[in-house]
This record gives sequence, structure tokens and C-alpha cells, in this order.
Amino acid sequence: MIKVGVVGATGYTGIELLRLLVTHQQVQLSVLTSRSEQGKSVAEVFPALRGYTDIEYVAPDSDSLLACDVVFFATPHATAMHQVPSLLEAGKRVVDLSADFRLDDPSLWAEWYGEAHACPQLLQEAVYGLPEINRDSIKKAQLVASPGCYPTAIILGLLPAIAEGLIKTEGIIADAKSGVTGAGRKASINKLYAEVSQSFKAYGVSGHRHLPEICQVLNSQTDASVALTFVPHLVPMMRGIQATLYAEYLDTGIHAVYAAYYQDELFVDVMPQSSHPDTRSVYGTNMCRISVHEEVQTKRLIIQSVIDNLTKGAAGQAIQAMNIMFGFEESAGLLGPALSP
Amino acid sequence: MIKVGVVGATGYTGIELLRLLVTHQQVQLSVLTSRSEQGKSVAEVFPALRGYTDIEYVAPDSDSLLACDVVFFATPHATAMHQVPSLLEAGKRVVDLSADFRLDDPSLWAEWYGEAHACPQLLQEAVYGLPEINRDSIKKAQLVASPGCYPTAIILGLLPAIAEGLIKTEGIIADAKSGVTGAGRKASINKLYAEVSQSFKAYGVSGHRHLPEICQVLNSQTDASVALTFVPHLVPMMRGIQATLYAEYLDTGIHAVYAAYYQDELFVDVMPQSSHPDTRSVYGTNMCRISVHEEVQTKRLIIQSVIDNLTKGAAGQAIQAMNIMFGFEESAGLLGPALSP
Amino acid sequence: MIKVGVVGATGYTGIELLRLLVTHQQVQLSVLTSRSEQGKSVAEVFPALRGYTDIEYVAPDSDSLLACDVVFFATPHATAMHQVPSLLEAGKRVVDLSADFRLDDPSLWAEWYGEAHACPQLLQEAVYGLPEINRDSIKKAQLVASPGCYPTAIILGLLPAIAEGLIKTEGIIADAKSGVTGAGRKASINKLYAEVSQSFKAYGVSGHRHLPEICQVLNSQTDASVALTFVPHLVPMMRGIQATLYAEYLDTGIHAVYAAYYQDELFVDVMPQSSHPDTRSVYGTNMCRISVHEEVQTKRLIIQSVIDNLTKGAAGQAIQAMNIMFGFEESAGLLGPALSP
Amino acid sequence: MIKVGVVGATGYTGIELLRLLVTHQQVQLSVLTSRSEQGKSVAEVFPALRGYTDIEYVAPDSDSLLACDVVFFATPHATAMHQVPSLLEAGKRVVDLSADFRLDDPSLWAEWYGEAHACPQLLQEAVYGLPEINRDSIKKAQLVASPGCYPTAIILGLLPAIAEGLIKTEGIIADAKSGVTGAGRKASINKLYAEVSQSFKAYGVSGHRHLPEICQVLNSQTDASVALTFVPHLVPMMRGIQATLYAEYLDTGIHAVYAAYYQDELFVDVMPQSSHPDTRSVYGTNMCRISVHEEVQTKRLIIQSVIDNLTKGAAGQAIQAMNIMFGFEESAGLLGPALSP
Repeated sequence: MIKVGVVGATGYTGIELLRLLVTHQQVQLSVLTSRSEQGKSVAEVFPALRGYTDIEYVAPDSDSLLACDVVFFATPHATAMHQVPSLLEAGKRVVDLSADFRLDDPSLWAEWYGEAHACPQLLQEAVYGLPEINRDSIKKAQLVASPGCYPTAIILGLLPAIAEGLIKTEGIIADAKSGVTGAGRKASINKLYAEVSQSFKAYGVSGHRHLPEICQVLNSQTDASVALTFVPHLVPMMRGIQATLYAEYLDTGIHAVYAAYYQDELFVDVMPQSSHPDTRSVYGTNMCRISVHEEVQTKRLIIQSVIDNLTKGAAGQAIQAMNIMFGFEESAGLLGPALSP
Repeated sequence: MIKVGVVGATGYTGIELLRLLVTHQQVQLSVLTSRSEQGKSVAEVFPALRGYTDIEYVAPDSDSLLACDVVFFATPHATAMHQVPSLLEAGKRVVDLSADFRLDDPSLWAEWYGEAHACPQLLQEAVYGLPEINRDSIKKAQLVASPGCYPTAIILGLLPAIAEGLIKTEGIIADAKSGVTGAGRKASINKLYAEVSQSFKAYGVSGHRHLPEICQVLNSQTDASVALTFVPHLVPMMRGIQATLYAEYLDTGIHAVYAAYYQDELFVDVMPQSSHPDTRSVYGTNMCRISVHEEVQTKRLIIQSVIDNLTKGAAGQAIQAMNIMFGFEESAGLLGPALSP
Repeated sequence: MIKVGVVGATGYTGIELLRLLVTHQQVQLSVLTSRSEQGKSVAEVFPALRGYTDIEYVAPDSDSLLACDVVFFATPHATAMHQVPSLLEAGKRVVDLSADFRLDDPSLWAEWYGEAHACPQLLQEAVYGLPEINRDSIKKAQLVASPGCYPTAIILGLLPAIAEGLIKTEGIIADAKSGVTGAGRKASINKLYAEVSQSFKAYGVSGHRHLPEICQVLNSQTDASVALTFVPHLVPMMRGIQATLYAEYLDTGIHAVYAAYYQDELFVDVMPQSSHPDTRSVYGTNMCRISVHEEVQTKRLIIQSVIDNLTKGAAGQAIQAMNIMFGFEESAGLLGPALSP
Repeated sequence: MIKVGVVGATGYTGIELLRLLVTHQQVQLSVLTSRSEQGKSVAEVFPALRGYTDIEYVAPDSDSLLACDVVFFATPHATAMHQVPSLLEAGKRVVDLSADFRLDDPSLWAEWYGEAHACPQLLQEAVYGLPEINRDSIKKAQLVASPGCYPTAIILGLLPAIAEGLIKTEGIIADAKSGVTGAGRKASINKLYAEVSQSFKAYGVSGHRHLPEICQVLNSQTDASVALTFVPHLVPMMRGIQATLYAEYLDTGIHAVYAAYYQDELFVDVMPQSSHPDTRSVYGTNMCRISVHEEVQTKRLIIQSVIDNLTKGAAGQAIQAMNIMFGFEESAGLLGPALSP
């Protein structure tokens, strides 16, 4: 039984952590912080948790975090980087779900996030928390940078093809679509029901912060240089990411390579050839489903990859990392089929 | 570990049974029947179940049902009544999620369902599977008639007021609203996405089959005669029932009576006075949340009651009955907070 | 060709006014005000209007309003009452879509809106803009208080029954459901897509500001005293209000009375007996559809009434009033069937 | 005033035709056919049309079609080709919204539609009804093949780039997303609300019938050979198509070329550079909005194109063609901004 703290436990990522942690057998939910809701019981703010916890929110800088074994940050970027160093010094382990420790290069971070990084020395120390790549490093890590949602779907979709040299690494297209929770739980007009519902659009065509993260990770898996066009889209739904990935293939038989590559992975499911995985099939789960199709006329490899952005794309993957860090079953607290419908 | 069979395991109620049963620790999912999908693997039909079961659908009349300890019927009405007698004779226990055994009176059944009942002698033997009323009888029952979705929300909402004589039993209004899965998983134009989405309406204003069930159960809890107007409505959402119930109150202090009445119930949550429970807070769970409000000017008691129609309104409640029948923890396989958002 | 101004033309009610006014043949859209968007072109803010108008937003207190023949206020309450007096003095006509001039009694207004009314002397002068009741007065009015959305649906649903003495005026229940645009276009967490979608709830059980408006108007149509319980609900959809109305009837043959009562009304459609009008059938239109059902066993009259809250419930009805005020065809700019699906 | 007939007036495309035609000033809706609803009034089947027409459905082979000036076919494929020849012989003009006359090559048609074409001689005679390419031919046409919904969005998005030689014609990616009405109004489980809602997926990755249509039209605009990968996706919404189009650009300054190319087109709107048009902005309208972005690092041209699949993608475009054929204003019956929200 370990003691767990969550900083920023009122956003969608934070709520999803709570949903999963309250039934995790080896975890005691000890500290929840929230600037806006401090003093209130979490079950008052989120009635879905009535009966599962009677914990109260405390201030974000609470000393009680120091009594935890591990602290999750479910905060906007540029928050964790100010609090993490003192927790690490105190010997705590940290899983950061924000973007603060995902990029290796402080100048790249500064370019995309518009300010200097507060503790650049930790960028090298942080382990990128994608178990399918870094399982062993995660085990020993004190600081895990949990991957972004788009990067999780796109990297898992391209990984075997890149790592095994099956595609041209230039001219890759990642056309990705996300449910609305990906944009967080802030009051803003463009996320209102009546703005989002029954409409579809691209956004960020001129650049999205997840692009450098995707490129950094894919480049680490190949000697070639990856050039990728990434366009995110907003889907009128709450959860789910689907990415359709296009690349020129260099060889055929790719489905078998994918199946072999992921055969021991609990949370990556290579579907039968030319399947069409839907986000519904991973709703509320930590699963990534992938399908592979070779279009012979154009020599295009077409990959489809789906995850739940809040689970495998955020809270679930962070708990998976915690399970690895503390030697629990990797799937502890993460099993059960998708709610469907 | 008991062996479980599900007849009709391709409808929404059947799928929800599967979702819950595949992670239930004391259950082995043994037989699934489907006329349309026999021979196919359930995980092929419902990819959300990939990795959780590799069972194949068999024909509805399969002898393999006789190897089960308990058989669930998740079929349209007028199906179970033809198969249940032989299962009971073979000593099997049965939980029927359809309407076949809910009414005591065969002539009432015939009136509402348009044909004679196939085994009227079983109507008296069947136990109405609402644990909050019949826990002890369920324990010993061989045949449980699991309650309808609207009746579950409405009966639990009115029960303390009726049983404790707090309201006039005439002139009660039950204005109830349901998500679309309540209408089942049949191909029909009026359930298409583009027909249901962004629209709201009443239906069944001239009579709904759940009315006699509601009246029968409420009448069993009082010496007075209950007269109730019930209007169901269709909400553009997948899951959830909300009922707003109106009655003239005879005495005040009703919230305290409700809180006391349900204090030992795991799956009924009496919210703070004048709360507004939303269906979101019970999404995918076996919980019923109730709030109570006394409108002083008009002497109206206004009760709000919410459930998930597929869980507490169907599959969850059926499993709750099974747990009671077999002496398991009543909440086995039924815990975990609602998925939110 | 009259010159029209719209104060507050960035909310949902204001946008709906623009949608309808840009194709109204006898109207020139002259002045749009917005505090937040002043200086921007309306087509830049709402691309749906590209090609229909190139007008720019000005400040709310712009003198240019004085060059208009009529000014619509599509503002939150307690705004119009500060600007309207000077416009009236300048001889302008005003249609206020907010709540500022709907109640006759300044102390009632103060009670429900939490501050004193700024120009109580105008409350008696303002004409309640429901053409089905006040057509003649609207014709001559300088100041029209356009009805609220819930009141429009509920009053039109009950009017013939109240006016013709067909029901008991006590114990009436109005169970009303609204799409999300009814709550306006302000950034707030509880209106976010991921909060509203796939959930249903009541709200305002302990009192809603539309109740005194409904009672005032219904009481004006009968010598008896109307006592009504009104519970509003939130539906996961953008537009539409449905009200199910329950009352004890005193006589039968009510459908025929309704049909006769509304036979000359262009925008009230009495459906065949026991129909179930859906909000879809009035989407984006100025129509109110009503159905009537007598439940013999309980002597309940069950009325269903549907409108589009932004059109007949706001902008459409306001334009209908303007048409009457200026002697245009009452339906000018308001025809065309609902978008369906 | 011309007399218009609609064959198959109960599908989504047919209903949209009715919605637009009942308010078209130069059109008299004369004959509606429906196999399933013959004998019923259209307003009974679609209450949204109450008050706009009292016409009754007749059988599909009704002679009354011969009294029309123009007949629209809003039927599934392989229907019109059996009825059109006799109508043409009788001197009638025909606009076919199905796929029967879109392809020039009968063997290609047979390959994609699985049967021989019933009147291959008409394939050359039929004019492809995209006004932006074929305005002059449409004027004189007796038989117009109205374009498919995906082809409309994709062709209009790529047309200036292809026609002006601005991109490589190989390696083009069309990642297209459609609302559910694109799949028609047939009762089938995979189109149910509870199957479609809150989920996103690709479909048709191994080939979609709109691909040969797209290629045929684009190839007609260039000497080079167009090679295009087209993946359609299903969006949980009713209406709307968005296509994100990727190609390698050969020259810059593309936005200006697009703006010039479409400057005289009423129904193509080139948005400011790097805009993100949403389907909301064209909801229920005949408009196509396009935006253009050059990604310098990868030399990719990224085009976004949105239409309403039922309007510019079907019924609206068909009426636009009719307007051209009969010398009406091209925009007659097609104006008015999008319903928003």
C-alpha cells in the first residue's frame, strides 16, 4: 500500500486519475490539491465519487505531499517544473502528466512553451513514460514524464514501422482527431457544448506543441531523420483519439511485423488486417488498438491507431508507469473492458 | 466459481452483462447464445471484449445451458417464458431481465403484451428482483424477475414516501426520461443517430408497459391504492434514466425519512436536500441517486431519481440479484465510480 | 426598409437575431454592439455570416443606435433597463429579449433579480410580446418585453385550457426540458461540452425566474388563481424546449377546443390527438407545436408543447413582434421548415 | 413556375430536397414518390413540413412524373438507371443525386457497383453537375449527374492546385470525415444512435466508391495523372464533411491563386490564410469553405475543405444545377446563413 498525492485534481486528467486510483488495491489516495476547491470534499465537487473517498482538497503547495510515496501532477504546463525539484530532493517519486519534462532540449521547450524552463537540469534525468519503449528505465526512474495524448497514439502507431525500417521516414502524415476533453477543463467559449456539438474542424495547422515530442521520440528509434506533418482535429465527443497515419512503405508484410513487435504488450492490440478500430472500443480503458493496411496502388501504408486520451493518453498510462516503478502488476487497477455503448 | 450462461447476449442489456461478468471474480462465463451471431467469437462482434473472453456464440436452445449454474435472459419479452420452465426443471437458477415474469397477474400480462402467457403458474413463484424490497426472497429464489429500468428509478424514488405514508397516493406524476439504449439494439429508423440526436420528445403518453409493473410494486407497499400518471421521454444520450416525481405531501421532514430508509443500502444514495443528481454521476454504475425537495407553496414533494438504465436498470441489478442468490458479496463485480466525463 | 440595431449581438439570442435579420427583406441591419468584440467585423467572429453582412461591432453605448428605427436588446438581465429609457425618449421603438420588462410588479422583479429595477415606471408601459395574447397592443407598443423561452412553451401549452376554464387551476405541473443554449453563451465550466454531453438533470427545483412570469400571464387569462409547480431540466442538445404539462381536467373534448383556439395562429400548430411532437420538428423555426391527451383513469390532461428556445422562444418571436409593430407580414423573415435532420 | 418531381423522397437527401424546394419561389412541388410511404401525406411522415405542403406520396413508377418539368432522383444507386431513359425520351430533364451517371466508363461503374450498367449509352450524355467546372454544360443538359458528397468537398479543395499545376499530382492524401447522414436513412444497427455517438473511426480503408469519381474529375483538369489516397471517417454528428488534403507543393503563393480562381463563385468561400473552417459554418447551406496552408518545413500544402453533405454535397447542389438548367438565379432557394448553433 503506497501513499499517493495528486496535484491539480479537478481537471479531466486529474478526475480520471481519481476514478482509477480509488479502486486500485495497492494505493491509498492521501493528498489531493486544488487551488479553486481547497477545503471542499472531492465527493461534493464530483458526486460520482460519493462513497469512494471522503478526502478533502488542500492547497497545491501543501506539505502533506511530502508524506506521499508518489505524486502525480495533473496540472497545466509550467506548473510542475516549479514544484518537482523539492519533491525529488525529499526523495519522493513523481509522475508528471503535463508537458514539463517531455522534451530533452531546454531551448526547444522554451521555443514551444514561451518561457525558459525552470529546472533544465532535470530534463535529462526525467524518463519518458511510454512503457512500450522505456519499461526498464521507468522501473528505476524517480521522475517520469508521462507522454502526451496525441504522441501516445501516433508513436505507438508508427513505432514498429520506424524501428524496423519499413517506411520512408520523410513525408509521413499524421491526421489525428481528438475528443474535447483533450483541451482540458477550463471555462472558455470555444469548448462550450453549443460550440463543439455537431461540428468538426482542424486546428493547429500551423503547429502544435505535441509535434516536437513526437519527432524526438521517433527519431530516437531510427538513424534516419523523421519528417512528419501533424494536423490535429476536434471531434464532437468527450473522449478518444484516432490517428490515421500515412507513409510510403518500403516492404510488404507489415501486419506480421506489427503483431510480433507488440505480442507481449498488454495494452497494445494489433487488430486483424484492414480493421477499422473505433475509439468506442477503448473508451475508459488503457488500451491502444492499431490496424495496418497496405494500399498497393500508391504504396502507402495506412495505420489507424486509437486510444482514450484520458486513460492510455494520460491517467491510465501514468498509473501504468507507477505500477512499473513500484513493482506492482503492470495492469493493476487498469483492467476491465470498455464501457460500450 | 459458478458457471454462467447468457441468452441473447448481443443486445445492449446482454453486452452490459458481459462487460460486468468478465471481471467478476466468482463467475465463469460459460455459454453465450445468439441467433444471429452463432459461430462467431464474441470478441469479433464486440472488439471491446478482445482479451477478456474468447467464447463463441451458440444457438439459443443449446443444451450447454444445462451445464450452467445460473442463466440470464437478456431477450425481448415473450422469449424467456418458453425456455425457462425446462431450465427450472433441470434445477437451474434463472434471472430474467425481460418482462416475462414481472407481473403477478397472467391476464394483466396478456393485456399489455398481446398474447397469453406461456407458463402462468410461474408468475407467482418468480421473485421480483429489487433487492431493496425483496432481498430475503431473492436469496432463496430459483427464478428472479429483474425489474424494468423505468420501474427501478420510479419505485426507488417513491418507496419511502409510499411505505411510510408521507404522500397522497393519488395524483402522483412520474415524468421520466431515458437514454436511447432503453429501446434496445434493433435496427429501426427511429433509433438512428440522425433521428435521435439533438431532439427531445415524449412517447407512450397513452400507456407504457412499465406502468402496471410500477403500480403493482407500489401497491404492495401500502394499504392505499396508488394512482400514477407516467410519461416516458426520449433523451439524446446513450445511457441513463432520470425521473422527476411529483406528489402532494402530507407531512414535512421527508428528507430525513429517506436518508434513514436507505441508510444500509449500498446502491441507493440519498443526496443532500434539494440536490440535482445528474445521470452522469451514475454512468456505468449500479447506483441510484435520489434527491428530495418539498415545495412549500404548493405542498408538492418533488423527488429526483437517477440510474443507469443498463446497469442498475438492467444488467447490474441482475448481477446484484445473482450475488444475493449465491451468497457472494452483494457488490461483487459492481464497484467502481462512474466514468466521468 | 427600416433600420435595425442589436445590442449584445454575440450571445446565442443575438446571433439568432442576426441569422434571421440578414435575410429579412424589409430590414437593414444597421448597428450591432458588443463590448468584447467592438471593432471586429461580425463575419470574422461568426464565419457563418460571411457574405451576408460586413458590419462591424460598435460599443454598447454607441450613439449610432439613435439612427435606428427599432433596437433589439439581446443582453443579460439588468442591462436593457439602463439604456432603454433614453432610446424611448428619442422616439425609438425597442424590443427587449431580456427579462427586464416582463414583470408588471417592480417589487416582484427586485425579489427575483436581486436589485431594484432602474425604471419601474416603464413596467406598466411595456407590452408583453406574445402575439397570441397581445397582438393588438404590440401593434401600438413602443416597448415590447419579449417573453422568456420556458414561458412561451408553457403559456402557449396551457392558454386555451386556462382561458376556457377546462382545468383545475391548482396542482398544475410543468415539467420542462431545455437545450443548452437556453443558458447563454458565457464561458463557464458547467456548460462545457464534456460536462453537458450524455447527461440529463433537473435544475432550479427550488425556484426559477421564469415562474413569476408564467403565473402573471396565466393569471391574466382567468379569474381563478393559478398554482403551478415548474421544474426545468437540462437536455444534452443545443436547441429546443419541450414541456410536458399535467393538470386535472374538468371536461372532455379538449383537443377540439385547442384546435379552434389556435386556428388562425400562424405559429402555433395543434397536432393530431395524442401525438408526440419532438423539438426536431421546430428546429430553427418560429413554430410552437402542441399535443393534447386526456388520461381517463386519472382525469389528467397531458399537454406536450415544443418550441425552439432561440427562435419562437427568443429571436423569432421578437422579430414577429417587430413585424406586427411595423405593419409587415407577421411571418416576414420567419418562414421555412425546420432543418431535419 | 416549373413542376418538380422527386423520386425517393423519404431518405435524408430527399427530405433535404423537400426542405429547400417548398420555399423555392419558382418551383411547384408536384410529385413525390416513395415505395414505403405511398398514400401517406408527406407532412404526416415529416411533421417539420406541416403547413408547407399537403402533397401525398405516390408509387415510384407513377405516370404523374411525366407531368413534371424536371425529376430529381434521390434513390440508392442502381435505381435511377432503370427509370431515367423513359423520362428522357418523354423530354423530361433529370437531376440524378445517386451514383448512376457519375462515371464515364461503364466497366469502371460495373467494377465498383457490382452489376452491369442498365443504360451505358447515357454515361457520355450525362453532365457532371459541379457548376464550378461544368456551368455551361449544365445549362444545356437534359441529364445531370449530381456529384457525390466526398467528391464535392475534395474536388473543390484540390481543383485550383491541380488545374494550375501547383502540386505534385502523386502522393496526394485526402483524409475525409463525414457526419452520419452520409450513410443514408436505412434501418441498420451500425447507424443507431447508441453505436455512433461518442465514437470516431475510419472506414473503407481498402476502397470507397467515391474514389474513381474523384480521380476521373481531377484527371480531366490536368495532363498529369492524379494518384490519390482517400480514407473516409465517420464523425458522431448528423451533417457535414471536412476534408484535410495533403500534397507536395511546387510553388508558393497558393492562397492568392485560390482566391482568384474562385472569386466569382457564389458557393465557394476561400477563407483567410491558415483559417480552420468548421462544418458548423456551412450547416444547412450550399457553401463550401476552403482554407490553404503551406507547411514550409515539409513543403506540404494543407487544404481544409468543408461542406454540408446534404446541401452542397447533395440536395443544394442539385437545386443549383436545376437553377442553371432553367435559367433561374443560380442561388434561388439556396440563400441564408448557416443555423448556428
